[in-house]
Amino acid sequence: MAGVFDNPVFPYFAFYATVVVLKTMAMSFCTVFHRLTKKVFVNPEDTAGRGVKPSTHESVERVRRCHLNDLENVIPFVLIGLLYTATGPSLGSALLHFRIFTGARILHTIAYLLPLPQPSRGLGFIVGILVTMSMAWSILSNSKY
Amino acid sequence: MAGVFDNPVFPYFAFYATVVVLKTMAMSFCTVFHRLTKKVFVNPEDTAGRGVKPSTHESVERVRRCHLNDLENVIPFVLIGLLYTATGPSLGSALLHFRIFTGARILHTIAYLLPLPQPSRGLGFIVGILVTMSMAWSILSNSKY
Amino acid sequence: MAGVFDNPVFPYFAFYATVVVLKTMAMSFCTVFHRLTKKVFVNPEDTAGRGVKPSTHESVERVRRCHLNDLENVIPFVLIGLLYTATGPSLGSALLHFRIFTGARILHTIAYLLPLPQPSRGLGFIVGILVTMSMAWSILSNSKY
Repeated sequence: MAGVFDNPVFPYFAFYATVVVLKTMAMSFCTVFHRLTKKVFVNPEDTAGRGVKPSTHESVERVRRCHLNDLENVIPFVLIGLLYTATGPSLGSALLHFRIFTGARILHTIAYLLPLPQPSRGLGFIVGILVTMSMAWSILSNSKY
Repeated sequence: MAGVFDNPVFPYFAFYATVVVLKTMAMSFCTVFHRLTKKVFVNPEDTAGRGVKPSTHESVERVRRCHLNDLENVIPFVLIGLLYTATGPSLGSALLHFRIFTGARILHTIAYLLPLPQPSRGLGFIVGILVTMSMAWSILSNSKY
Repeated sequence: MAGVFDNPVFPYFAFYATVVVLKTMAMSFCTVFHRLTKKVFVNPEDTAGRGVKPSTHESVERVRRCHLNDLENVIPFVLIGLLYTATGPSLGSALLHFRIFTGARILHTIAYLLPLPQPSRGLGFIVGILVTMSMAWSILSNSKY
């Protein structure tokens, strides 16, 4: 198993991993935006002085479901992607994985937040998982147990 | 602190880390399976054309709780495990940590989904945490602050 | 892009990353403590023999929200921080990032659990995000796409 940081694939991995993690973190801002504009807060210390009671709202819950789905899929991609980069894949194959995953998750987010009719969100979700599983397969073929 | 990728422990870490991340991702398929067979969807665009309204179901919620517990425990294991591998542990000690954690989380998942009577699930949960804390201790003893 | 594990910044990154991950995992113990002392369990196999029914409680939900917020912020910090360390930052700049983030998240946790009046929690939250975004910017400037 080759090194990862002296690897020609690594600077590309760093880029796409950072993009999808930033996209995940953007969901926090999206949640805060909906909470402030709709005055929907769940903690009593947040509602204090605003004249509202703790409550929930479908717009906020939708963003939060999207955020949780990102945690369930983007974090595994970054972890598996780092180990995959260490297996010394060809640059072409690695870029194909990174770019398809990034595109799929951006589609997933747009489809979730607008929302777009299904199966757009389901497509982004399943393509992302298939990319991660393909990288996982490469790791398992190059590892010891 | 020795390197991680030119480390004899790394190919083993790659294997066990990938196995537990794939196990976590398998919860997504389990959730989808329960949603489709029980027709339980939370988004209006998912229920469209199925003749059902958005709803929740205990079978789906149970899988989702198991998935969240995996995120809370498996992701820290992989992050801490990578840093632990970089401390240059002996192969025997590292394999002991990786294998016990993997076994504990598989027990946790089986105990959660069947479900098995307690304390089976609690045992898988606490053993996993103790393994991660033991690796964290090794890192803290070999790091600077 | 320089290596990460032969990097003078790495032993410091290992320390602060481990501290914030352990802090995140401590939320599990906090949840268990509230569940046991207030007899609040969500799974039927957990309430069996305790003479209570599955229920929820605001103290437990508050800790769980704090835990989820940690997952949404601490995990991205560790992933982005590892890639940032690989870009070969100066030790002074890196320590500034790691220490401010760690302090911000400890403030966030204290503010969430006591709770302290706002904007203490919001301050810990936003400072943590700004630190991670600053590191992400360094990665994007040093990566390829």
